Amino acid sequence: MNHLRLEKDIEFIIELDQMKQIMRRTRLIREDRRENDAEHSWHIAVMAMVLSEYADESINLCHVIKMLLVHDIVEIDAGDTYCYDEKGYEDKEFREKSAADRLFGLLGGDKGAAFRALWEEFEEMNTPEARFAASMDRLQPMLNNAFSDGGSWLEYRPKKSWVLKRATPIKSSSQTLWAYVNEMLDDAEESGLFSKED
Amino acid sequence: MNHLRLEKDIEFIIELDQMKQIMRRTRLIREDRRENDAEHSWHIAVMAMVLSEYADESINLCHVIKMLLVHDIVEIDAGDTYCYDEKGYEDKEFREKSAADRLFGLLGGDKGAAFRALWEEFEEMNTPEARFAASMDRLQPMLNNAFSDGGSWLEYRPKKSWVLKRATPIKSSSQTLWAYVNEMLDDAEESGLFSKED
Repeated sequence: MNHLRLEKDIEFIIELDQMKQIMRRTRLIREDRRENDAEHSWHIAVMAMVLSEYADESINLCHVIKMLLVHDIVEIDAGDTYCYDEKGYEDKEFREKSAADRLFGLLGGDKGAAFRALWEEFEEMNTPEARFAASMDRLQPMLNNAFSDGGSWLEYRPKKSWVLKRATPIKSSSQTLWAYVNEMLDDAEESGLFSKED
Repeated sequence: MNHLRLEKDIEFIIELDQMKQIMRRTRLIREDRRENDAEHSWHIAVMAMVLSEYADESINLCHVIKMLLVHDIVEIDAGDTYCYDEKGYEDKEFREKSAADRLFGLLGGDKGAAFRALWEEFEEMNTPEARFAASMDRLQPMLNNAFSDGGSWLEYRPKKSWVLKRATPIKSSSQTLWAYVNEMLDDAEESGLFSKED
């Protein structure tokens, strides 16, 4: 038994518990609090299981799920960056790369590298799996807002064009889901949930 | 586009948000609050990715992950049953079957059946994947307790023999993890975290 390897694995698993304290802007649907990264990651992983049939390209669902489970772990160190926070995005890449070095570095070499590769693939969005994974990541907060009378949209009042831009991975990975998103955002616009365009 | 099918899928996805409000007995490691089912399900799914190399039998990791993501969904209706609550266990099966009928029934026929099959396989624990999945489900609360000076053990003071019995899926799926668990429980016993045996 390789004690050291298992001990490093356990150290990583203990560290993961902090994902339950990294708060996002998105609010729960039937309770007035924000969700955290662990909850969000679980929700979008199950969403991928439910919605993978609508992917336009052939995708490896298992690979999508693994990416989704891992994609926010860097936020344990780097924190959540609000998607419309331009200033926060300036150093997001640097903060998250340092976080990846430390967090995935806790795991043994081959396993740490495999986890890091999943996170990098998600970030680069160059594979059908990464694009579908990003679609789940973008769709879930929109659903949480739309099904709770506005949620964080009402709080931060983004422009509809910003929300649509943020949702573009959906456009490139599922025509069915993209049509659904457009209907949903049209309804939200009619309800006055967005700021006026310039 | 099959609007009705997608609408049912979205209804299920919205329902899933409630997993973020189903509280377990386990406490977070560095914060004094209980964890919820969504957080727990995410944590053990990533644990499976980290620890699958220690499985004694050959397992399909993807299948394990899917079971773990889905295994607690019935608790949206049935609630969490504390593992040492004998009274709660009397009607647990009935409550959870009714919950499965309603919740997986929200999905279209084939998809609902596939989700239900994952939950049933987990519950029956007859496959190597189900046993490994159950091992992750049992190991995580033990780790959270051991790495936070006792956690819910200190609160509920189970006997060590109960905790060991609850952990038996680990014994049947990984010698390495079983050895680790025994060391961890010996330490916890020395620290006086358990009630005395009869």
